[in-house]
Amino acid sequence: MIIVGEKINTSRKIVADAVRNRDKRFILDLAGVQESAGASYIDINVGTFINTEPEDMAWVVDSISGNVKIPLSIDSPNPKAVAAAMGIVKGPVLINSISLEKERFDNLIPIAQEFKCPVIGLLIEDGNLPADAESRMKVADKLVTRLADKGVAHGSIFIDPMVQPLSTSMNGLNEIFRFTAKFKSSFPGVHLICGLSNVSFGLPNRKLVNRAFLAAMMTLGMDSAICDPLDKELMGLIAAQEALLGKDQFCMNFISLSRSGKI
Amino acid sequence: MIIVGEKINTSRKIVADAVRNRDKRFILDLAGVQESAGASYIDINVGTFINTEPEDMAWVVDSISGNVKIPLSIDSPNPKAVAAAMGIVKGPVLINSISLEKERFDNLIPIAQEFKCPVIGLLIEDGNLPADAESRMKVADKLVTRLADKGVAHGSIFIDPMVQPLSTSMNGLNEIFRFTAKFKSSFPGVHLICGLSNVSFGLPNRKLVNRAFLAAMMTLGMDSAICDPLDKELMGLIAAQEALLGKDQFCMNFISLSRSGKI
Repeated sequence: MIIVGEKINTSRKIVADAVRNRDKRFILDLAGVQESAGASYIDINVGTFINTEPEDMAWVVDSISGNVKIPLSIDSPNPKAVAAAMGIVKGPVLINSISLEKERFDNLIPIAQEFKCPVIGLLIEDGNLPADAESRMKVADKLVTRLADKGVAHGSIFIDPMVQPLSTSMNGLNEIFRFTAKFKSSFPGVHLICGLSNVSFGLPNRKLVNRAFLAAMMTLGMDSAICDPLDKELMGLIAAQEALLGKDQFCMNFISLSRSGKI
Repeated sequence: MIIVGEKINTSRKIVADAVRNRDKRFILDLAGVQESAGASYIDINVGTFINTEPEDMAWVVDSISGNVKIPLSIDSPNPKAVAAAMGIVKGPVLINSISLEKERFDNLIPIAQEFKCPVIGLLIEDGNLPADAESRMKVADKLVTRLADKGVAHGSIFIDPMVQPLSTSMNGLNEIFRFTAKFKSSFPGVHLICGLSNVSFGLPNRKLVNRAFLAAMMTLGMDSAICDPLDKELMGLIAAQEALLGKDQFCMNFISLSRSGKI
């Protein structure tokens, strides 16, 4: 499972304060604890600072890059903020995110090509979210094809079906589940990723909903998630689910994480 | 989700002591807490008392029956123990369990017919457990057909695929997952049930494994489980998963259980 640690996001007040005050120690610690907890990437989102996003992104990237062993995920729809990050970052990054929207695609694809970055591709077209599994498949097919045409290999594409909150859905998340099974059977070499926290928006006991959703999606083929690696129960479920799915021979990783007390 | 509460089982020393000492208060409390926690059935298994199983079963059934609102699940391969329970029990029960093994089938089916009980049917034939999804489907097809021939309606059949421990499996539980999806698509009106605790045998962090397995199986169509209703995290995952699967309109049950502090 590829885990993109979501904690460095200025929609969280404590993170916004740290970025505003240029508190490098805080930001670096928040990256470090996510790395220790098992994150594969550290996501950076400073999107709430609308007027200063490129400078703020550059500052955060400069604070972390080279000080953790795992790569960063540059989380912005703003090509200027992504470009600012790329000018500074040491080592590989994940671009989070691209979509079929013309301006975003055209501005971000040259960066992905130049730096040979993996990209997260959102299932959105002309500002609309597709509703059912079949419409999502159409957009996914088009997006994977366009990215591949531009030289992004299947293994460097992470498709994000843009999960809407369960609280606003009339039929649970069955269309997302159906899409996931279909997509992984059509594109087994392309990653499927979701942001977990949106799923539970507006509900009590949000972590429970996130955990249940993650376990369901892993069963259907999701192989990466933008989530909180500091949620020990969540990380335990991920390790258990990998063993159940035959992706952890002799349960070695599960047993080792259990013994170390990490889960 | 139909939850068969597993706590009254004499393989647990504290339960064995209570049965041996005819401690009615203890047994009744253990039934009551499971009922309050959301169990649909109270399982009773006194199988460790090999020589006195029918009398012990009768005593436990007599202690509980009529004192809880939910039905009992009579958990024994021994037709004499099942018959002893049926002579005493007030109200409906679940027979746990029947199989295609001739003696067991022939002795238990008249009881199921007389009392019009739902039954759990184990996927075992001639003492062998089928290995892959396809072999399981063959046995399941045969068992459902034979039960239906004897007048047991599809809605009164719970098929148990007999999950082996993850720790002894080479490929995770993928064959169980494949069987579950196939079975629910062929027999949507037949229940699918698993005992959770066996899955994690021999591993650390057993509850995590049980929870992950349950979430995976619910996603694929399992609609009942023999499990510990006192595991609050497990019960929370079940409620969340039902909402995600569109089985809890407006998340009413999930929200209500969350507000009451039950999950």
